[in-house]
Amino acid sequence: MEKFINDDFLLEDDYSKRLYHEYAEKLPLIDYHCHLDPEEIAGDKKWDNITQIWLGGDHYKWRAMRSDGVPEKYCTGDAPDREKFQKFAEAMPRMLRNPMYHWCHLELARYFGIDDVLLDGNTAEEVWNRANAALKDLSAKSLMKMSNVEAVCTTDDPTSDLSAHKRISESGFEISVRPTFRPDKAFAIENHEEYIAYLEKLEKSAGIEIRSYDDLLTALKRRHDYFNAHGCRLSDYGVSTIWFKNAFYYEIEDTFKKATSSSEQIAADEILAFKSALLLECAAMDYDSGWTRQIHIGPMRNTNSRMFAELGPDSGFDSIGESNYAEPLAKHLDNLNSAGKLGKTVLYNINPKDTDMLASMLGNFQNSDFAGKIQLGSGWWFMDNMDGMRRQLEAVSQMSLLGRFVGMLTDSRSFLSYTRHEYFRRILCSILGSEMRRGILPKDFDLVGKLVSDVSYGNAKSYFGL
Amino acid sequence: MEKFINDDFLLEDDYSKRLYHEYAEKLPLIDYHCHLDPEEIAGDKKWDNITQIWLGGDHYKWRAMRSDGVPEKYCTGDAPDREKFQKFAEAMPRMLRNPMYHWCHLELARYFGIDDVLLDGNTAEEVWNRANAALKDLSAKSLMKMSNVEAVCTTDDPTSDLSAHKRISESGFEISVRPTFRPDKAFAIENHEEYIAYLEKLEKSAGIEIRSYDDLLTALKRRHDYFNAHGCRLSDYGVSTIWFKNAFYYEIEDTFKKATSSSEQIAADEILAFKSALLLECAAMDYDSGWTRQIHIGPMRNTNSRMFAELGPDSGFDSIGESNYAEPLAKHLDNLNSAGKLGKTVLYNINPKDTDMLASMLGNFQNSDFAGKIQLGSGWWFMDNMDGMRRQLEAVSQMSLLGRFVGMLTDSRSFLSYTRHEYFRRILCSILGSEMRRGILPKDFDLVGKLVSDVSYGNAKSYFGL
Amino acid sequence: MEKFINDDFLLEDDYSKRLYHEYAEKLPLIDYHCHLDPEEIAGDKKWDNITQIWLGGDHYKWRAMRSDGVPEKYCTGDAPDREKFQKFAEAMPRMLRNPMYHWCHLELARYFGIDDVLLDGNTAEEVWNRANAALKDLSAKSLMKMSNVEAVCTTDDPTSDLSAHKRISESGFEISVRPTFRPDKAFAIENHEEYIAYLEKLEKSAGIEIRSYDDLLTALKRRHDYFNAHGCRLSDYGVSTIWFKNAFYYEIEDTFKKATSSSEQIAADEILAFKSALLLECAAMDYDSGWTRQIHIGPMRNTNSRMFAELGPDSGFDSIGESNYAEPLAKHLDNLNSAGKLGKTVLYNINPKDTDMLASMLGNFQNSDFAGKIQLGSGWWFMDNMDGMRRQLEAVSQMSLLGRFVGMLTDSRSFLSYTRHEYFRRILCSILGSEMRRGILPKDFDLVGKLVSDVSYGNAKSYFGL
Repeated sequence: MEKFINDDFLLEDDYSKRLYHEYAEKLPLIDYHCHLDPEEIAGDKKWDNITQIWLGGDHYKWRAMRSDGVPEKYCTGDAPDREKFQKFAEAMPRMLRNPMYHWCHLELARYFGIDDVLLDGNTAEEVWNRANAALKDLSAKSLMKMSNVEAVCTTDDPTSDLSAHKRISESGFEISVRPTFRPDKAFAIENHEEYIAYLEKLEKSAGIEIRSYDDLLTALKRRHDYFNAHGCRLSDYGVSTIWFKNAFYYEIEDTFKKATSSSEQIAADEILAFKSALLLECAAMDYDSGWTRQIHIGPMRNTNSRMFAELGPDSGFDSIGESNYAEPLAKHLDNLNSAGKLGKTVLYNINPKDTDMLASMLGNFQNSDFAGKIQLGSGWWFMDNMDGMRRQLEAVSQMSLLGRFVGMLTDSRSFLSYTRHEYFRRILCSILGSEMRRGILPKDFDLVGKLVSDVSYGNAKSYFGL
Repeated sequence: MEKFINDDFLLEDDYSKRLYHEYAEKLPLIDYHCHLDPEEIAGDKKWDNITQIWLGGDHYKWRAMRSDGVPEKYCTGDAPDREKFQKFAEAMPRMLRNPMYHWCHLELARYFGIDDVLLDGNTAEEVWNRANAALKDLSAKSLMKMSNVEAVCTTDDPTSDLSAHKRISESGFEISVRPTFRPDKAFAIENHEEYIAYLEKLEKSAGIEIRSYDDLLTALKRRHDYFNAHGCRLSDYGVSTIWFKNAFYYEIEDTFKKATSSSEQIAADEILAFKSALLLECAAMDYDSGWTRQIHIGPMRNTNSRMFAELGPDSGFDSIGESNYAEPLAKHLDNLNSAGKLGKTVLYNINPKDTDMLASMLGNFQNSDFAGKIQLGSGWWFMDNMDGMRRQLEAVSQMSLLGRFVGMLTDSRSFLSYTRHEYFRRILCSILGSEMRRGILPKDFDLVGKLVSDVSYGNAKSYFGL
Repeated sequence: MEKFINDDFLLEDDYSKRLYHEYAEKLPLIDYHCHLDPEEIAGDKKWDNITQIWLGGDHYKWRAMRSDGVPEKYCTGDAPDREKFQKFAEAMPRMLRNPMYHWCHLELARYFGIDDVLLDGNTAEEVWNRANAALKDLSAKSLMKMSNVEAVCTTDDPTSDLSAHKRISESGFEISVRPTFRPDKAFAIENHEEYIAYLEKLEKSAGIEIRSYDDLLTALKRRHDYFNAHGCRLSDYGVSTIWFKNAFYYEIEDTFKKATSSSEQIAADEILAFKSALLLECAAMDYDSGWTRQIHIGPMRNTNSRMFAELGPDSGFDSIGESNYAEPLAKHLDNLNSAGKLGKTVLYNINPKDTDMLASMLGNFQNSDFAGKIQLGSGWWFMDNMDGMRRQLEAVSQMSLLGRFVGMLTDSRSFLSYTRHEYFRRILCSILGSEMRRGILPKDFDLVGKLVSDVSYGNAKSYFGL
């Protein structure tokens, strides 16, 4: 049987193969959004076995296992690593057509040199042994270098001192590792206690007392400047929907004071107005620093109370949320645009029903500030799979300019996820090659190959300025 | 010209053909949800002509005919059977690409042996004669046996005495025919008169007086037990959206008393809270009995007042409804999960914009109680076609586990609809075979064939425990 | 290299080729909805260069240029025509997979005879010269004749005196050019000043004073009659969503009086009730005249305040809106149906999430008044591309009758857009041919070819009665 992960994986005709091998394969990666822990890079982390690096923090895998009926002790629990790996391997055959099936085999092939067996319950022992042997020579930094990574942006709270980033940079590591400013906790005024605790951290890191909304903005601005001075070029906002509500500045001040002085519940409208205002203020800071702003829109988090109580957030109990935000988003962007503060922006949606709405929205605010200034983000989370990527690419193509798309990112906590860039590039080349073959695109390799290189690397390179 | 319905219908390459013929074709059917009338099975119904079995109660066909401009007398009216058949046949060419075109020709081929002509106005006479001749030897039971059916679940009101089911079982019929508990009428407190009338029926069948919400629950529980004792293993709920609203028990009691004691309109919020509470209570009963719960979410019914006045419900004037129910559904499931009462559940959506949201929701509540415990239901009603099935399979594959999917059902009132299982299996094999050919799936027949068998039969077999 | 736009462009197999060349290619066009300026037809407009005809009024092209970072002066500004063309040509490679890329090359091939170069920055000079040379022999009327147009319906305000249409008709022009009644301004009571100004125009054209809602209806009815006498057979309504709210007639009168007598803001509910009532009244007029009513549902317009202040409406700052309108639409249609006033209706949605809901809605109100009486409109605006058309055709096919679909229209302001009919026909034949090849449709050219001809021409011919 031919190898599953072979040189031409997903490349179904000569056009696709040539596009991939000549125009995409060898380009470096710019991973402009991920959730790697910078401490693990600074410390050049190593792992004892494949369970640690594969199942240690990967809620995608836990979800797949739970869906297959695997008990929690083999997911997040205290079962021995070898047993956890066995359970995962046994579930693999049911994951056919799930991105997990492709991701896992790509990772086995690229990092562990295992491309001659399919993982399942019977091959688990062999894969365990071979992978663990390979792991001996692998580390956080070596994996990044093997993956031809040029730059990486982690995701960081404004209170971070960025010391890990400094150590990485001072170590002479050849890959640029930069922070991303993600101030989500500064928005969460609805949770009184956590908010107060967060403000204290922020006060410390910013070196000022926060007694008012104005102080909050000052503190955030100081941290923004600090991040900027430490190489940050992107911000990121995780939101349930796009908040927009007009209010007077004094009303926002009132809301802030209410929220911080008492644990009484604040009205939903006031919370909305507060978040709306703060989102605009932060956008203006991003604009003033020349950063690219990312907004991740729409997940519904921590839906399973029992498991949340046991495991906390980010353990695989989130799903696609639902809201109508065309109008507030248009107003949010228009407000910034009118104020001359709308900068480079990447909008990621979690619910595919919003993809077309969003792709059409981009065009309302494009201008000569920057080619492709407003972007539709790559297929994200539940859309980060073959079907989701194809739909995102279709929407960007038909309603915006594919030729200006900044392309893929990992959005991952794992050092093995760089294969997702390969996966994306193969899918991109497969789509374009197939359309060349079918006469939907001109059979012109210079023309289409340029687009492949731009979307795989060139656009991100010039857009983000890393 | 090659036969339209031939051995390899919809199977476009050798992979698809082998998957279908080796791993799917010969497996029995488990039709775990349908609307067959158990009386017709018990009486082993026969039909005089194809109009009776095809057009007698099929609102899909009436809709297609009306869309083609056919007068109502040929749909539901009193035109002679031969003329009705003629009108339907004449409309067939306009139904190209509609599932009707495939369904009809599959049924003609499989049950009437007519696979050498395409139905249209010119061939109607021949098809009429041949089909009616074949019908002489066919009956409800023989059609089911011909179709290799192993088990069937009808859809029944809690007040049903299930006498038809008893007669079927006592007759020694080799196919298991079980009831499904569908208590929709117990939810409809907004219609005072019908509700009072329904409660009277329920009182009689349950043998208790219903003076309170508590009595209602007791009555339903008695019927639930009765159904369980008579082989029922599934419940089903038809809902316009997912109802969720917290309320105190005494408030529900108040609402129930208001609704039953006077015809005054109850507030929308109170109705919502009542339905929310009852949906949870019924789910708990289902859990306690180890049943699988089905929820069919979202149609908009009886939209055409004139035709409703003429023909009543289920006559082809329903369509896809619209609501945002990600949040209430998450809360509903979480509430049950926290109470330890969330059992096997199949969620069917009518609006394809909700498919991805729903497919991602499943993972929030999967656990080791049962592999694939929470399911995304098969493409249903307006989605029960090639495009709808493909999208449902895509969402299940990418966001859940295709390998645990319980597969197809007919959801039909007709004894000829078992070909929809064949249709589904062919489409499934066509998707998987094409992906093997293209290297998207491993070219491993044991691996992919196992998945085909599981989704076609094995999963339903073990999941529903029929 | 083979020509990009060749005889078999988009036709991937022999089935598709034969369907297109034998059953579609030579049929005339019925362009039942467009935004051509009738004055330009009457005056048989000519253009000096390709920038005038291509970039002069085309907000699709401006959006594509802005997305590529082209400064506004090259889009709508005062840069020289040659430079504007250069900038557009330079942006073309980034438009690969955008419909613009296909449209432009189709237009260059069909009207300018340029099918041997791909437009980009390097070929711009050659294309400019060759296109301008060809333009010398082209005019509004000659372009329409070249395109094999049989009938065209423009889009006109009720106050129009239709003098251009009269002149066209009196000139003996062989193509039927008819007006369409589009009374959107009569609905816009929320903008006091514009509304008052509009009523004055309407008073003049209708020859009555408008002091009440009743007068408004009389005035519109007079203009409706006038349009009917001048060949109008369609109406058109551009709406943000479907308005439906029950109200007493006297309440609508009150709202109208409030809105016209003072600039105070009217309550949203009153505006909704007013628009709901007026939409029903206009529908009844359409029904009484035997017209076809079109409703274009859902765009969000003029989202960019800065650019709106500079350029006004229809300059490329609109996008896909979002609303839930299944229920109000069902009620709107039911209301008309109950009153015996529901006539031929074409519903166009801008948000693809609504396509399936809408396609399923059609069937609720079909009857023998006319075959295919309620239609799902062609892929429109942001959906007027290969992906959007495919999805619209899929929904119509699976949930309604493709065989009764009235097919394509340009919806364009340009005399070069008739190639969109060719584009549509090629895509239609490509879908159907591919399905014949794959055995999804019978390999019967009479059967499938008839469907191609009907959808390309025959259905529109008999449906609109132009």
